[in-house]
Amino acid sequence: MPFESFEVGQKHTFGAYEVTEEEIIEFAQKYDAQFFHLDREAAKDSLFGGLCASGWHTCAMTMAMMVENMDGKGRSLGSPGIDSLSWLRPVYPGDVLCVEQEVLETNPSKSRPEIGIVVSKVSVSNQKNEVVMEFISKGIFRRGS
Amino acid sequence: MPFESFEVGQKHTFGAYEVTEEEIIEFAQKYDAQFFHLDREAAKDSLFGGLCASGWHTCAMTMAMMVENMDGKGRSLGSPGIDSLSWLRPVYPGDVLCVEQEVLETNPSKSRPEIGIVVSKVSVSNQKNEVVMEFISKGIFRRGS
Repeated sequence: MPFESFEVGQKHTFGAYEVTEEEIIEFAQKYDAQFFHLDREAAKDSLFGGLCASGWHTCAMTMAMMVENMDGKGRSLGSPGIDSLSWLRPVYPGDVLCVEQEVLETNPSKSRPEIGIVVSKVSVSNQKNEVVMEFISKGIFRRGS
Repeated sequence: MPFESFEVGQKHTFGAYEVTEEEIIEFAQKYDAQFFHLDREAAKDSLFGGLCASGWHTCAMTMAMMVENMDGKGRSLGSPGIDSLSWLRPVYPGDVLCVEQEVLETNPSKSRPEIGIVVSKVSVSNQKNEVVMEFISKGIFRRGS
């Protein structure tokens, strides 16, 4: 009963994603070819002070940790979207990211009694316990009854 | 003068990103390993009715179109985040995506007179003119004076 297994206030911490320069550059070449995600030397003159991951890459790495955490537990049926995404600090090569997810709301669907929406706050931190990204996540889960 | 080149109400349409099954699966294997992004047969039983792209992959493909559109024009210095992201329809293999970006606000920074924030609405559509994703984007741009 995945939907029923969520309770407001629950917090889970998970993940240990090691960020590499190689992966930062590979993602940026495909999807975010800005110099501060591609060129170690040129990036020193950017607002970020050095080569850093695309914000969308940080989202993708976060999703990888969330999916790994879902394994063997309730799997989401999908998501209608996210809110209030903030990229708070750059993510650098060598950083190790982890996720804290806190359940904010559990909303049974009015129109579709077989599903419900779980709203949670996702905070991603680096190995210095600095929050690098936050967003509000909405996940669709099947109801058990 | 990138920041000064933006005006509220400006709309630009750009991009033609061809979505392939191969790329959907490659992205999902790395970052979003849920069956509806990985397995063509199993995905028929999902809410989406077939294999579809990770929402984060749609974000990444959209960023690729936005960066390509920036080339030779004002380049962004970075972004503090996004708001109100909605995944409205699945993105399937064979879809061709394009972007409409409308400037909503141009806000000079109070604390840093050399930069300003451009707020815009980003709408991503497929080849049937169906909107598949929307979000509010914030970009940091250098001021010309």
